[in-house]
Amino acid sequence: MLNFNFCRPTDFYFGRGQENHTGEICKKHGAKKVLLHYGGQSAVKSGLITRIQESLDEADVKYVLLGGVQPNPRAELVYEGIRLCREHNVDLVLAVGGGSVIDSAKAIAMGVPYAGDFWDFFMGGKKPERALPVGCVLTIAAAGSEGSNSCVIDKEVDGVVRKKGSRFQSNVCTFSILNPELTFTLPPFQTACGACDIMCHVFERYFTNTRGVLMTDELCEGVLRTIVQMLPRVMKDPKDYEARANIMWASTLAHNDLLGVDREQDWGSHHIEHELSALYDCAHGAGLAVVTPAWMSYVYKHDVMRFARFAVNVMGCQMDYEDPQKTALAGIAALRRLWGEAGLPLNFKELGAKKEDIPTIVDNLGGPEHTEGKFMVLSKKEVAEILTLAADYERPAQP
Amino acid sequence: MLNFNFCRPTDFYFGRGQENHTGEICKKHGAKKVLLHYGGQSAVKSGLITRIQESLDEADVKYVLLGGVQPNPRAELVYEGIRLCREHNVDLVLAVGGGSVIDSAKAIAMGVPYAGDFWDFFMGGKKPERALPVGCVLTIAAAGSEGSNSCVIDKEVDGVVRKKGSRFQSNVCTFSILNPELTFTLPPFQTACGACDIMCHVFERYFTNTRGVLMTDELCEGVLRTIVQMLPRVMKDPKDYEARANIMWASTLAHNDLLGVDREQDWGSHHIEHELSALYDCAHGAGLAVVTPAWMSYVYKHDVMRFARFAVNVMGCQMDYEDPQKTALAGIAALRRLWGEAGLPLNFKELGAKKEDIPTIVDNLGGPEHTEGKFMVLSKKEVAEILTLAADYERPAQP
Repeated sequence: MLNFNFCRPTDFYFGRGQENHTGEICKKHGAKKVLLHYGGQSAVKSGLITRIQESLDEADVKYVLLGGVQPNPRAELVYEGIRLCREHNVDLVLAVGGGSVIDSAKAIAMGVPYAGDFWDFFMGGKKPERALPVGCVLTIAAAGSEGSNSCVIDKEVDGVVRKKGSRFQSNVCTFSILNPELTFTLPPFQTACGACDIMCHVFERYFTNTRGVLMTDELCEGVLRTIVQMLPRVMKDPKDYEARANIMWASTLAHNDLLGVDREQDWGSHHIEHELSALYDCAHGAGLAVVTPAWMSYVYKHDVMRFARFAVNVMGCQMDYEDPQKTALAGIAALRRLWGEAGLPLNFKELGAKKEDIPTIVDNLGGPEHTEGKFMVLSKKEVAEILTLAADYERPAQP
Repeated sequence: MLNFNFCRPTDFYFGRGQENHTGEICKKHGAKKVLLHYGGQSAVKSGLITRIQESLDEADVKYVLLGGVQPNPRAELVYEGIRLCREHNVDLVLAVGGGSVIDSAKAIAMGVPYAGDFWDFFMGGKKPERALPVGCVLTIAAAGSEGSNSCVIDKEVDGVVRKKGSRFQSNVCTFSILNPELTFTLPPFQTACGACDIMCHVFERYFTNTRGVLMTDELCEGVLRTIVQMLPRVMKDPKDYEARANIMWASTLAHNDLLGVDREQDWGSHHIEHELSALYDCAHGAGLAVVTPAWMSYVYKHDVMRFARFAVNVMGCQMDYEDPQKTALAGIAALRRLWGEAGLPLNFKELGAKKEDIPTIVDNLGGPEHTEGKFMVLSKKEVAEILTLAADYERPAQP
């Protein structure tokens, strides 16, 4: 077990109707004027934005509106948000949406008190000295940004879209309002992408070389089993409150780093996927459904017993004591089956990616000596082999 | 699943040598002068207090010493601490010890800025408007006070020792320093008491009538399995770092309320045990080892499948599908075996309690209409029956 520091001061409000207290919660955390930041039209059409506005009015908290955040949020809108916050003396950024909106809000919050370009915090080296507080009303269970120190932004640099992440303590939300009912109307594909993203946040931490970390392994497997059990339920009945609630809380726990504090983490699959969604603007969860099982099939021999444990404890496979490798592979197959049945793509064709782009994808990851991952350190050649596996994977015929 | 609010801003420093950063951590959290609060002589003799003093000196943080906290911490020392803090303008209470020291520190922190008697916060009704920040260096994995909003104090009122708890957000530690090595020298009995206390913190949350809480049930079972696996390891080798580390982190997770946010909690066994340790000054964990299995044997029929699930998922029993009740009872028996093998008392005689005191114990719980617990609401008569079960329990002969 590694030494660690862990501090997640987020004030969570979870359950039915909690978004109607947004105004008083903003006030409790000292906000007088907020940037009300959101995405497309669904939050407006559903009446959610109006309800939040009413709640802010009631609590006498002023607001400035900035909608239009896209999936894979763009730097352009971040600059616009920074400008607005400065112009209107905003003291808290309130994100209403999923991970993209929250990440856009976090980037704005970093940029407002900083004299330089906020993108400095994404290119490595620079650390924000301070940031505005960020609060959120979550509408998609997926990215875990509502509880994490992470923020991912896309920016076009020299004609190429670059997706970069940052991890800072100041990225942790001051408060997060989580009402599972707000995810009832999410399209099935987005629900499935979210579940995949949640599971992958755990995988990046679960597949580790660090030993002696039973307590956290137990937490990892508990979150994974919850998704395995609840995903088919929400695909069948999108208004199953308990299933939505378990998935939403799992999304937070999966990525606030409670599940990874004590160990070396991988993040190879995530980085590889970021290049796919930067190139194709595909949903992050969809890209992960293609990349992650291919990564697993490539690296499982590095620690067969770890993958066998995953197969048995999470995917409900039988342990084959004479051939643990068979168990490991059965676990990966069961995962693909779970995701496939939820409507997720499992290969390049289904994702809308092209095999001939693999050299470009790999080049975008970094220079010739670039490596990915920690569980098994992968050269660019090995990443290309994983992507080839992902490209060519054929779904088994339905029984 | 119930709606909830959850906020645990504690800044955790976990692992080998972390206590040597105590000074800088105090400073990071704005402290200029701390009350260095500790228990008996072991922390002094081991050199821990000296190392903490050196660390404070290095960071130029001043301190006032107050040792002498006893297990089941007393109000008298709290008054003394409050007086010292006021006299020396202390701005943070630093507890070095286990749950008793941390709870004593929390009570002092509540009392310092309050004009009345700190005991008001324990008699119900009054809520502290503010409190000094509390930090801790943990030396016993048990009470979970390092991450919880809970504080329990004993006070003699009219010749009777009353043990009372309080739960406030302001009771949550500002920082907690957790080095598992500091528990290497703990006597085996105290180690076992700690493990029992940790498991019971989970039981109070796990045995609930609230449905649809799979995610949190998974966390509960994960913490319980960790203790089941690690307790025999530390009893065998007290310097097994990984086992000590898993138990220490489990103790924090068991009681910071992450495992109970979404549900009705019981706390009957804890309240009953508090009367035992108030009367006999026994270790809290030892009292729980006697009370909790008796409580389980009394209430399991209220939800046989819940206890069967516990037996299978936590204690590793086989499910008897024809007679789940048998499985439920096997789980309780396995728990008693685990605790008994770790040297814990399992009945009144082994604890040093007397059957003829049962009426007094029950009377001390409250008036004639008093009830205990939520999983199954127990009258005083039923509590007396549970205590009789606890008193008379005979260990099965060794095979």
